Amino acid sequence: MFNPSIWKKLRRGPQVILLKDAAMISALTGLQSGDRVIDCGAGSGFLSCYLGSIVAPSGKVFSYEKREEFQKLTEANVKKAGLDSVVRVSLRDVIAEGFDEKDVDLVTLDMGDSSLALPHAFSSLKAGGFCAGYLPHAEQVQTFVKAALAAGFEQGETIEVIVRPMLVRERGFRPENSGLLHTAYLSFLRKPRAGHSPVSAMPVSKGT
Amino acid sequence: MFNPSIWKKLRRGPQVILLKDAAMISALTGLQSGDRVIDCGAGSGFLSCYLGSIVAPSGKVFSYEKREEFQKLTEANVKKAGLDSVVRVSLRDVIAEGFDEKDVDLVTLDMGDSSLALPHAFSSLKAGGFCAGYLPHAEQVQTFVKAALAAGFEQGETIEVIVRPMLVRERGFRPENSGLLHTAYLSFLRKPRAGHSPVSAMPVSKGT
Amino acid sequence: MFNPSIWKKLRRGPQVILLKDAAMISALTGLQSGDRVIDCGAGSGFLSCYLGSIVAPSGKVFSYEKREEFQKLTEANVKKAGLDSVVRVSLRDVIAEGFDEKDVDLVTLDMGDSSLALPHAFSSLKAGGFCAGYLPHAEQVQTFVKAALAAGFEQGETIEVIVRPMLVRERGFRPENSGLLHTAYLSFLRKPRAGHSPVSAMPVSKGT
Amino acid sequence: MFNPSIWKKLRRGPQVILLKDAAMISALTGLQSGDRVIDCGAGSGFLSCYLGSIVAPSGKVFSYEKREEFQKLTEANVKKAGLDSVVRVSLRDVIAEGFDEKDVDLVTLDMGDSSLALPHAFSSLKAGGFCAGYLPHAEQVQTFVKAALAAGFEQGETIEVIVRPMLVRERGFRPENSGLLHTAYLSFLRKPRAGHSPVSAMPVSKGT
Repeated sequence: MFNPSIWKKLRRGPQVILLKDAAMISALTGLQSGDRVIDCGAGSGFLSCYLGSIVAPSGKVFSYEKREEFQKLTEANVKKAGLDSVVRVSLRDVIAEGFDEKDVDLVTLDMGDSSLALPHAFSSLKAGGFCAGYLPHAEQVQTFVKAALAAGFEQGETIEVIVRPMLVRERGFRPENSGLLHTAYLSFLRKPRAGHSPVSAMPVSKGT
Repeated sequence: MFNPSIWKKLRRGPQVILLKDAAMISALTGLQSGDRVIDCGAGSGFLSCYLGSIVAPSGKVFSYEKREEFQKLTEANVKKAGLDSVVRVSLRDVIAEGFDEKDVDLVTLDMGDSSLALPHAFSSLKAGGFCAGYLPHAEQVQTFVKAALAAGFEQGETIEVIVRPMLVRERGFRPENSGLLHTAYLSFLRKPRAGHSPVSAMPVSKGT
Repeated sequence: MFNPSIWKKLRRGPQVILLKDAAMISALTGLQSGDRVIDCGAGSGFLSCYLGSIVAPSGKVFSYEKREEFQKLTEANVKKAGLDSVVRVSLRDVIAEGFDEKDVDLVTLDMGDSSLALPHAFSSLKAGGFCAGYLPHAEQVQTFVKAALAAGFEQGETIEVIVRPMLVRERGFRPENSGLLHTAYLSFLRKPRAGHSPVSAMPVSKGT
Repeated sequence: MFNPSIWKKLRRGPQVILLKDAAMISALTGLQSGDRVIDCGAGSGFLSCYLGSIVAPSGKVFSYEKREEFQKLTEANVKKAGLDSVVRVSLRDVIAEGFDEKDVDLVTLDMGDSSLALPHAFSSLKAGGFCAGYLPHAEQVQTFVKAALAAGFEQGETIEVIVRPMLVRERGFRPENSGLLHTAYLSFLRKPRAGHSPVSAMPVSKGT
């Protein structure tokens, strides 16, 4: 059991990816123990830590970040989370230099110019592997999906995850008055598997 | 990597728990490989399968169901998902008879009368372990939380998870016109740890 | 045209009813110029002002408030909004004393104990007239609807109105990051018309 | 009181504008009895009817539609709604030919190429008057707002209106399982008033 109080103890630099989005990235791509993941850019390292908690103990997260201060922040957070044997953080401009790993199960992209990293992501993924983009704006989603199709990916679902906190009190039950409305859209892509037809949508939000 | 196409192949009996809710139950309780979980009632076994995919290969899911047809359905789905070494499905009226396991990390409850199983859940959990209720109605949440406090639990967050599928097309970007609005509220509880003060809320939906 | 900048100039005492909810109360009940409305309790008078702007110039809003400071606040706001010939504000405990008017088109209720005013509302409404409850908590809705059926009303829709503000900027299009999540549920009731079968739901949120 | 059952009796051709959106267009622009409105394109005439119900009896809605079958449909619906003295429906390609009216209070635009009608809308509005665009896609909003600024408008709020229908039953309170997720974004513009600074946002969705 990964201690959920850890999240309160990690230090926050750039805007962090919250559990609501990390949870859905992991679940929709079937991530599990033993998997190998590339996470880029690391930012504060929250997503790297969450993915690390799922692929541990035998899997790996290869986390890339181009700004040294964020690489160090991510390394510090990974250590606090007790995941230093699972998550490795590299300082690199991946758009220029690409990733080292091959045959990974998942690539997550959260950069201003994520779409430029898609050919690298495609080449690092195993057949059937997933790529997930974390994209705040509508236009970024369009650019991302177009670049993904050009790079050879199959287009999957694009979703927005909304968590409504509820107040449960003696005086009554209701949603909280104010809070988070939007973080980012999540766009899912898949590298085709030889001899397989495209995967149909996963039942993330479809009733019976 | 757990094949996400599996979800399309499992058979659906009673209303299934969707990935959006399963993902958040797993993420908010810090579930990971090696953990031991009780899931009750099993229904069609979707939640058991998702939790099994996370705790595999060394963890276990002890799935309970009181109706024989649903127990058999869950067993068939667990087998199809390749998780028979991880998930064990028992036929039992747990409210009357309780659970066999002790010191589990997580108990998930999805029954019409889940609140009646809370004392059993409390006694099966290790200190610091979580219980998550899947509760369609507001009144059930109130009953559940009151019974939980009476059983010794600390009250955690109650949330609703909403996933908006987006259309990303040449002609434009927009949310889908219609779809799923509600499945259930998720209520989280924690068994107190000796000498620890109550855990503060996890950053599921709080910005920096 | 009612100057929408007025809303920024009115003074706010107790929690005000926002345009999103006032707009839907007006639209779902078919309110228009010339109608007669009872609004209770007045609070800061925002709902009285909005309803007044719709029923003006020939209609009337009879606004009731039991706390003198809020009655005075509502009167000041009504004056600022230029609606003193349309909205009349009375100081009264309506649960004990009832309303003076008969054959009104709409009664709006926003009090902690709104359900206790339902028999008065029923007796003041014309046949076919509407009552709308502004109810923050789930339990209040249940109590309100039960009391309404007991008082002779037909149950209409209960809704929650959510407005997502969008950012439209050079750098991209997206929902705002944080903001309002919940104000109150709106519950609609109708006084039966002699010889008419109950009205079916209005197309507030149903596609073609 | 405008009979809300009317909406069930009108015939639906092209996708209609629902009350949730019509209500907010009316409320955010301060529409009231006596106002003069241009609505274009009319489609099935639902928005023309709603706006007509608000500006009646002394105001006018000038409804424009370029397809003859929809013009006739709107005329039939206007008649059914008893608004033929308030709403006039013209057959015209307004992008080519413009509007006849001047000094109107509100122009509503719901066409595939609404942004092309913005200079006509600007020239028909009185100073301080509003224009509201009904725009299904994100890209349309961007195009619309850019064209509006070029035409001389002040940019107002862009919002999405979501109505969640709630089930209120003996067995419990909860949102409905499935339903409408999205119709269109609503974009508000204002024609500047001489000597006035731009209007700040209206309190549609801001708490105290």
